[in-house]
Amino acid sequence: MSVTAPLGFRAAGVAAGLKAPGARDLALVVNDGPSRAAAGVFTRNRVQAAPVLWSRQVLTGGRVRAVVLNSGGANACTGPAGFQDTHATAEKVAGVLDDSAGEIAVCSTGLIGERLPMDALLPGVDLAAAQLSRDGGLAAADAIRTTDTVSKISFRRGDGYMVGGMAKGAGMLAPAMATMLAVVTTDADVPAAELDRVLRAAVRVTFDRLDTDGCMSTNDTVLLLASGAAGRTPDPAEFERRVTEVCADLARQLLVDAEGATKAIAIEVVGAATEDDAVTVGRAVARSNLFKCAVHGEDPNWGRVLSAVGTTDAAFEPERVNIAINGVWVCRGGAAGDDRRKVDLRPRDVTVTVDLSAGPHSATVHTTDLTAEYVHENSAYST
Amino acid sequence: MSVTAPLGFRAAGVAAGLKAPGARDLALVVNDGPSRAAAGVFTRNRVQAAPVLWSRQVLTGGRVRAVVLNSGGANACTGPAGFQDTHATAEKVAGVLDDSAGEIAVCSTGLIGERLPMDALLPGVDLAAAQLSRDGGLAAADAIRTTDTVSKISFRRGDGYMVGGMAKGAGMLAPAMATMLAVVTTDADVPAAELDRVLRAAVRVTFDRLDTDGCMSTNDTVLLLASGAAGRTPDPAEFERRVTEVCADLARQLLVDAEGATKAIAIEVVGAATEDDAVTVGRAVARSNLFKCAVHGEDPNWGRVLSAVGTTDAAFEPERVNIAINGVWVCRGGAAGDDRRKVDLRPRDVTVTVDLSAGPHSATVHTTDLTAEYVHENSAYST
Repeated sequence: MSVTAPLGFRAAGVAAGLKAPGARDLALVVNDGPSRAAAGVFTRNRVQAAPVLWSRQVLTGGRVRAVVLNSGGANACTGPAGFQDTHATAEKVAGVLDDSAGEIAVCSTGLIGERLPMDALLPGVDLAAAQLSRDGGLAAADAIRTTDTVSKISFRRGDGYMVGGMAKGAGMLAPAMATMLAVVTTDADVPAAELDRVLRAAVRVTFDRLDTDGCMSTNDTVLLLASGAAGRTPDPAEFERRVTEVCADLARQLLVDAEGATKAIAIEVVGAATEDDAVTVGRAVARSNLFKCAVHGEDPNWGRVLSAVGTTDAAFEPERVNIAINGVWVCRGGAAGDDRRKVDLRPRDVTVTVDLSAGPHSATVHTTDLTAEYVHENSAYST
Repeated sequence: MSVTAPLGFRAAGVAAGLKAPGARDLALVVNDGPSRAAAGVFTRNRVQAAPVLWSRQVLTGGRVRAVVLNSGGANACTGPAGFQDTHATAEKVAGVLDDSAGEIAVCSTGLIGERLPMDALLPGVDLAAAQLSRDGGLAAADAIRTTDTVSKISFRRGDGYMVGGMAKGAGMLAPAMATMLAVVTTDADVPAAELDRVLRAAVRVTFDRLDTDGCMSTNDTVLLLASGAAGRTPDPAEFERRVTEVCADLARQLLVDAEGATKAIAIEVVGAATEDDAVTVGRAVARSNLFKCAVHGEDPNWGRVLSAVGTTDAAFEPERVNIAINGVWVCRGGAAGDDRRKVDLRPRDVTVTVDLSAGPHSATVHTTDLTAEYVHENSAYST
């Protein structure tokens, strides 16, 4: 399944020696066509990794023959030499596929600020090319993991075509995309401009509404590749729905596997004057460390929710805000409502509903609790 | 010392029964004049506690006879009934002082969303009034503690006058003031408008540059009261300097006592195009959970600093940014610089210098590391 569920794609995941001995760390996804149409969405961080700078250029052409992805190093903040490493990686892939480097996308993930060991990476590309297969999607998804405890894959069947995907990302999941890499494939026949529209629409309501620790990465990349091998031009609305479903499924898997998390928290904002207001409020709550600690302690501390709402410029009157935690309206009209002891916060899934009483719009932002395990994992990551 | 260091002030701190039996939880600070000039700065959170709404009104008159402060309850998100409780508290203090409630400021701190036990608080005011004394400053500082492990007090001597102060605040220390209450007093003779100018100038570069967990409180209040009892009109620049020193000293004490913190981190931003840019960048770094975890783990992970810088709209070019950690320039020109193993992160004080190479301006924002103890304290606070 994964990225090889649709026709026209081969993939591989191999151990190139970038990470601990024996662990897969290099993935290759190849589009055998007949179409090579592609679209990409990248981090909005102004500090962008070399592979992001490279792949943005590739995607301006709307065509991607292959994507090479490595874990074990982000190749971010590595200067001109790091960019040359990315370029050399694309050239190497182009060489083994007998194709043009200008249609090879590159993604990297891992520690920022260190050069990649190219003497291990380049032979790894040969190894991956030799193992490319129609059932290589699982190995590819495994190879892009960093602190991810499980591989993230998904697929959906459309009317005469398939959509498949893989993703990685566990910490630094943030605004405008998690620190994440995702490759979504389809065998439908869709031109690049339409892929771009659909990918942006899907990302906006899935990966962009995931905010586990408020930290925006230098490497975030989501790619959508279409092979056209199913010979079917899909209904635009249905295609957008399927791609969005795959992105939502991958986003959900990222959330559940977020570093140290014990709770998956949905912040539903309703009654907003605009959808932007709803997202702004959801994000402010999702970024409140105090709130996230309270959920970890299974404490229905709605004051920390309202206090986070108050830091935004969204339209609302404090005395008209209502807040429910797992269905219990603990805050009504900006003050204490139903008995907070009625709230059961033991389940893993937690829903916080913020009713701004300011309009008809809504949005949901997903986050996790803040735990001692998160601190532990991120205190020791690069040492 | 504390708020009673300057002439003309009496204070008391008593156990009214709002917190654990025997713990001081109510403070009273009285200005016996001859002047009653006062200024205040309040939270910019749009959800404001009843005592903030009340005291803002009082301060519009530029005169304060007394401040009553309680721990054990924030009286925030308590609706009209909570506002009436604040009003009743001010009336009670006015009664025992035979004065006007319109010149009584009220501050509260503690859990959001619960009413104060007025049957304990009002008798507490009688008790405090009976204990008012010229050396009551320490007891008052003790009474306003919540999770603070120590009282925070300060004083400075000016030319013929004194400036004293007390503060509380340990968690929810954030933008535009920590979750904090502070009362600063002076026996200099300064009109209200000048007090307002000096207080805003002092807060801007002290409390406003403290950001321990990014959470903005509903109750933040800093008051500056002048008794004029020293009979001296100070030099404006010297007075501003002394008030700023007291605020800086109190801010430093808040930082060192922040919940669960093991490091006091100064983020110095230099080479900024504007002071606002410098503050924006400093705050973005101060709010990066990943960076704060790395410092906790004594890991000089400069990539997390640069990645936080990249989320801002400050003027800078990624390839011109330099970063030093405790004096070692681990990042030069946006890439790895000196050997990160040279960085000694064992001391409690940590300095991160971010050189944007974009102009002559600078600012320093103070924060702490993120620890398992922070998570623990804030998981269990209201239960």
